[in-house]
Amino acid sequence: MAEIIDGKKIASEIKEEVKSEIEKLKSKGITVGLAAVLVGEDPPSQVYIGMKSKACQKVEIYSEVLKFPQQTPESELLSQIDVLNKRPDIHGILVQLPLPFHIKEDKMIQRIDPKKDVDGFHPFNVGMMVVGKPIFLPCTPFGIQQLLTRSGNDPSGKHVVILGRGNIVGRPLSILLSQKAPGANATVTLCHTKTDNMSELTKKADILVAAMGKPKFVTKDMVKKDAVVIDVGVNRIEDPQSKKGYRLVGDVDFESVKEIAKSITPVPGGVGPMTVAMLLCNTLKAAKLQTKISVL
Amino acid sequence: MAEIIDGKKIASEIKEEVKSEIEKLKSKGITVGLAAVLVGEDPPSQVYIGMKSKACQKVEIYSEVLKFPQQTPESELLSQIDVLNKRPDIHGILVQLPLPFHIKEDKMIQRIDPKKDVDGFHPFNVGMMVVGKPIFLPCTPFGIQQLLTRSGNDPSGKHVVILGRGNIVGRPLSILLSQKAPGANATVTLCHTKTDNMSELTKKADILVAAMGKPKFVTKDMVKKDAVVIDVGVNRIEDPQSKKGYRLVGDVDFESVKEIAKSITPVPGGVGPMTVAMLLCNTLKAAKLQTKISVL
Repeated sequence: MAEIIDGKKIASEIKEEVKSEIEKLKSKGITVGLAAVLVGEDPPSQVYIGMKSKACQKVEIYSEVLKFPQQTPESELLSQIDVLNKRPDIHGILVQLPLPFHIKEDKMIQRIDPKKDVDGFHPFNVGMMVVGKPIFLPCTPFGIQQLLTRSGNDPSGKHVVILGRGNIVGRPLSILLSQKAPGANATVTLCHTKTDNMSELTKKADILVAAMGKPKFVTKDMVKKDAVVIDVGVNRIEDPQSKKGYRLVGDVDFESVKEIAKSITPVPGGVGPMTVAMLLCNTLKAAKLQTKISVL
Repeated sequence: MAEIIDGKKIASEIKEEVKSEIEKLKSKGITVGLAAVLVGEDPPSQVYIGMKSKACQKVEIYSEVLKFPQQTPESELLSQIDVLNKRPDIHGILVQLPLPFHIKEDKMIQRIDPKKDVDGFHPFNVGMMVVGKPIFLPCTPFGIQQLLTRSGNDPSGKHVVILGRGNIVGRPLSILLSQKAPGANATVTLCHTKTDNMSELTKKADILVAAMGKPKFVTKDMVKKDAVVIDVGVNRIEDPQSKKGYRLVGDVDFESVKEIAKSITPVPGGVGPMTVAMLLCNTLKAAKLQTKISVL
């Protein structure tokens, strides 16, 4: 039976590390600041923003949420980003996605000063990761890398098979784990909807990452014995027995796969908590870079 | 016996297409311009710059080579790039690599206006390729994609195995061919020096790309029957029978592999000519973007 990789615990450890760094900065008179831009009333976005603010509070990062009505013109949002780019008390800026249809996500992200782009979504930062000189790594891939290394499953020399080529997780993770760098150095195969004979490939994986957003897609017969399985999926499925009427399941059929895997992440409590922890890490790093104080 | 993919011929076709576009621009009063920055006396760099200038001449792109002595300070080179960024007659800028040790390549490349970065090396352009909104694709990966599609070997749905994760070829090619886009949509495995059981993976490849710079590394026993083999290697090996004392060989053992492959690129005459052809394409594209004239 697989060992369960406890994302909540590992995320807490990281947050403790961040907190102690933040305190050192405070003792030098620097309060780390993060600003989030939220447009419209999308309920999940409001939940995510709430989680991020709460996480900031716990580690003593000052956080500010700029809320704008659904109909706010793009030009106004762009000017607000300009203001945040200039504010010395704000070290990190994030734009909560998705945005209303009339606003171009690309344009918003590209307007953020790359030095404050703590989500790691600006093409400049994406490019710096590709060429092996990362500044801010995108939070979920960064979190998966930390989950692996901190749970004793260093990807170096392993064959990692990633299902899903999205820009938030699958694709950047494939780039990150194949780098010539500590915590990386894996041989990576990136699979997607156009992949033929997918299970032939998944069965070769020492580390299998499911990030395509299909509930319970990965079943036991697709997994090699003693593989490490990382489940990035967060899918709502109907559940009349739950008070909310639904429950969350991953992209992996946890119950069957845990019988064959060496280690596996649960949903919830696996990758999810890591994303917010890495956002805090990136915000801390941004503050250090901008204030040129190295306390590590 | 494998069909030989004739890179020289395909490159000529592309150059003809570029030429006809350039002529259309000329008829509207626009001369496309490319500037190359060459520092020091590195003999291969001089050969490459010569080839690029000649290729420009053939398609009627105005080209200018700015030559600087080996000891030129970095700051002077950076100011020269600033000047080129501002010149309206120069649509594309490239810095010939490698540079002398006292000059930081990154800093030079990042100084080029991304709109003029026809090598596609600026992190912003690398990032735009990653997120699926490419402006300038790096020339060699772009050329390999063209070689594949124009020789009837579209990578869509195929398993592409790439050997070598360098920033010039292997890594960007892995990103390019796995995109959800025409001429891409492949399942891609990126292998490198840390890859275990490499030949087990190479034998799974429908398309195998060798880009690690090891003479004749890929042998017949590593290749699946009827695979397409792309050889990016350009290695000098001693050859007393040659007038120069050496000859060029690829990363693939051509003589043995051609017995089993469906199609194969020779060295020289395969990938090599494509790189320069794609540089011309990128320069044409840069001119169109900057002059906002669409003639396609």
